[in-house]
Amino acid sequence: MDTQTARVAEELKASLGRKVTTSTSALDLHGRDESAYPPHPPDIVVTPGSIEDVQAVVRLCDRFEVPVIPYGAGTSLEGHVHAVTGGVCIDMIAMTRVLRVSAEDLDCTVEPGVSRLELEKVLARDGLFFPTDPGADATIGGMAATRASGTNAVRYGTIRDLVLSMKVVLPDGSLISTGGRARKSSAGYDLTRLFIGSEGTLGVIVELTLKLFGIPETIAAAVCRFPTVDTAVATVIAAVQLGIPMARIELLDTSAIEAVNAHSGIEAEVTPTLFLEFHGSPAGVEDQALRLAEVADENGGAGLEWATDLSERNRLWRARHQAYYAALAMRPGSKAYSSDVCVPISALADGIHAAAADLESSSLPSMVFGHVGDGNFHTLVLVDPEDPAEMDEVKGLTGRLVERALAAGGTCTGEHGIGTGKIGYLEAELGPAVDVMRQLKRAIDPKNIMNPGKIFAL
Amino acid sequence: MDTQTARVAEELKASLGRKVTTSTSALDLHGRDESAYPPHPPDIVVTPGSIEDVQAVVRLCDRFEVPVIPYGAGTSLEGHVHAVTGGVCIDMIAMTRVLRVSAEDLDCTVEPGVSRLELEKVLARDGLFFPTDPGADATIGGMAATRASGTNAVRYGTIRDLVLSMKVVLPDGSLISTGGRARKSSAGYDLTRLFIGSEGTLGVIVELTLKLFGIPETIAAAVCRFPTVDTAVATVIAAVQLGIPMARIELLDTSAIEAVNAHSGIEAEVTPTLFLEFHGSPAGVEDQALRLAEVADENGGAGLEWATDLSERNRLWRARHQAYYAALAMRPGSKAYSSDVCVPISALADGIHAAAADLESSSLPSMVFGHVGDGNFHTLVLVDPEDPAEMDEVKGLTGRLVERALAAGGTCTGEHGIGTGKIGYLEAELGPAVDVMRQLKRAIDPKNIMNPGKIFAL
Repeated sequence: MDTQTARVAEELKASLGRKVTTSTSALDLHGRDESAYPPHPPDIVVTPGSIEDVQAVVRLCDRFEVPVIPYGAGTSLEGHVHAVTGGVCIDMIAMTRVLRVSAEDLDCTVEPGVSRLELEKVLARDGLFFPTDPGADATIGGMAATRASGTNAVRYGTIRDLVLSMKVVLPDGSLISTGGRARKSSAGYDLTRLFIGSEGTLGVIVELTLKLFGIPETIAAAVCRFPTVDTAVATVIAAVQLGIPMARIELLDTSAIEAVNAHSGIEAEVTPTLFLEFHGSPAGVEDQALRLAEVADENGGAGLEWATDLSERNRLWRARHQAYYAALAMRPGSKAYSSDVCVPISALADGIHAAAADLESSSLPSMVFGHVGDGNFHTLVLVDPEDPAEMDEVKGLTGRLVERALAAGGTCTGEHGIGTGKIGYLEAELGPAVDVMRQLKRAIDPKNIMNPGKIFAL
Repeated sequence: MDTQTARVAEELKASLGRKVTTSTSALDLHGRDESAYPPHPPDIVVTPGSIEDVQAVVRLCDRFEVPVIPYGAGTSLEGHVHAVTGGVCIDMIAMTRVLRVSAEDLDCTVEPGVSRLELEKVLARDGLFFPTDPGADATIGGMAATRASGTNAVRYGTIRDLVLSMKVVLPDGSLISTGGRARKSSAGYDLTRLFIGSEGTLGVIVELTLKLFGIPETIAAAVCRFPTVDTAVATVIAAVQLGIPMARIELLDTSAIEAVNAHSGIEAEVTPTLFLEFHGSPAGVEDQALRLAEVADENGGAGLEWATDLSERNRLWRARHQAYYAALAMRPGSKAYSSDVCVPISALADGIHAAAADLESSSLPSMVFGHVGDGNFHTLVLVDPEDPAEMDEVKGLTGRLVERALAAGGTCTGEHGIGTGKIGYLEAELGPAVDVMRQLKRAIDPKNIMNPGKIFAL
């Protein structure tokens, strides 16, 4: 801990007392995420209880030019919470209140530390839900900061579309509100969208107003097996063109089905499989399922199985739900190196083929799966982070994955973000536009105290 | 024309020849929009034919520090194209190409000058459509610059949600691309959303990649009359809560119905009326209409009339389609002063009542109507722009309209933008957040050459 940081620690302990810790175990815990990158512990961890606490911390860090790293649930896959140059980690675990819920307006206001599943429970009491579901039980603040999405973005949009406004503590400790509760606004620059996906590099998100939906009257789950990835993707394309409002449409590649069969006690047919969900009225859901079945049939699918009963729905989706754990079980003790890209859907089948072929040429266990309604797919490679040769191999695989995605007009990340892991790919994707991002960063955070080393190289 | 501007005119004529004009009639034409604010002609009008032309113009303006005003169709309602300190108007009328359309990916790439209806025609050949419909036949570039939306935003989102990426010429004449063709991305700051709604103050939008939809298999139009605004709004709230995916849901207040009856030869019952549209499969559309009818019935609606046949649909929506022209006919020769606000939907009925009461206390003819699914409503007042007392009166009405919207947690503009007309209200709405906007403006346009006097006071 350098002198400046020591001063900050001293002053924080004096003003915030037990909300501040420098214990090794706390620092270690907060220096890790779910990526395979090496951890970087912060020097100090603070758990503010209020916006005023956050402002006090940021003001101090501004004065002493010490880094500030906002921390949600630590479920990042790209090193977002790594304190690469030390500093103060602001853990939002004590700011988890749901401040208001309106069933009439279908919106709510929450503190950033509330987790996805905690919020789900609170909203369910009013028959409401917030769609964004990246899999992990991330915090709402963390999901907004990384522009998260997940399985149902094809129907409800990503979190970009679902935050109405937010309060943000700026790098000088001042507080702004980016808007109110209106569903839409054309009042000035879209600051809400500027902070969504800014990965903690422009300020600390301290409050969010979210767009909600009524829990659908009927939910149907469905599964359909295909002879090839191409026929599965052709089905998705046709269904999207027809405007069938699918709530989720997930693909497991044969590699993923094999892993599930081997490690989850499931005996699914080893062939590319689509997992779908439909939301609506009973008649609406049936109409969607029947139309999808027709499209799947025309494209060589093996007949759509669908159900609305909860236990049947869970049975149909079981392989999809087990995929991540099955992947981890392929090689116990190793870390999952998960990467994601997003391409125009016409390039999706080729993208998945090329990724699968490249992964098969590797010695490391791996799988491919995707949120295919958006053209977003993931590769997951089991790697020993302590083995430099393995890490080099997986980085090579990721580099080629991104290169192919960019060549197809896609993006280096659909939903995981840049963090520390994809900084070079951002340059490859956007070139001079990254200079504009740097100008924005300098304008708002001239001392570069906000989560330094993320999105941009140090 | 000052010396610097004269130098620009000279150099532009030398390099771009007939694409440049300083004729009085052209200048007059480009200094006007559809607002009631006094016109401000530019000094020079250029009609670039390519991105390179735009870059050449902006580079010159940067060198001589002369204002640049991007111009689409001139349909702004808030003075966006007014050259308040003179300068060069860049008219996009020669950049109207649809560069590519993909039915598979449901996207297209266009030049900014293509108009909404021109694009509609081109896309229809492939069975596709782009939803944003603000009423006027605006250009796509202009709609993106002002964050436009319109009647079907409740289903398809605003243009904010429908632009995948764009190319922008920055104030120094350099060109950036804000992204590719992926449906979603979490790669760095959301520059696409930063330029959407920036009203020409950060750069010139020169190309846009848009998200498209298949033309629905079935379209149904519907009308339902209500005893009060409150019962109509209660119906809207219940329908949104139930997740009925209405494509459009418009309200005409009694003032609007009266105007339509008086000036369009229609004999509609003078009572608050909802105009709806449903998109989907035949079964899906019927399900939506029947569910809406049930909700309307529970809330005191007078029975939903609905139809899928084109001529019947036009008959049902005729009063809505005629509303704007009927308003103009209330007082021939005067200008329509149209203002819009957006509030949480629970505050919509009160907002409309208060607006209607305030307008009735005025001597000027007026009407209220709204895109009520979003909580967005408009007032339209017929005013003589040459009469300072009348202009003061209408500004007072607008001020109170905005004040009430902000008190209800809403925004000073849902879709018209800030322009020159709502600069003061932006400050009232967002306070210190406007300072952040100014920092962004200074970072990207340090010489303030891009559309000066819009969003921020000079």
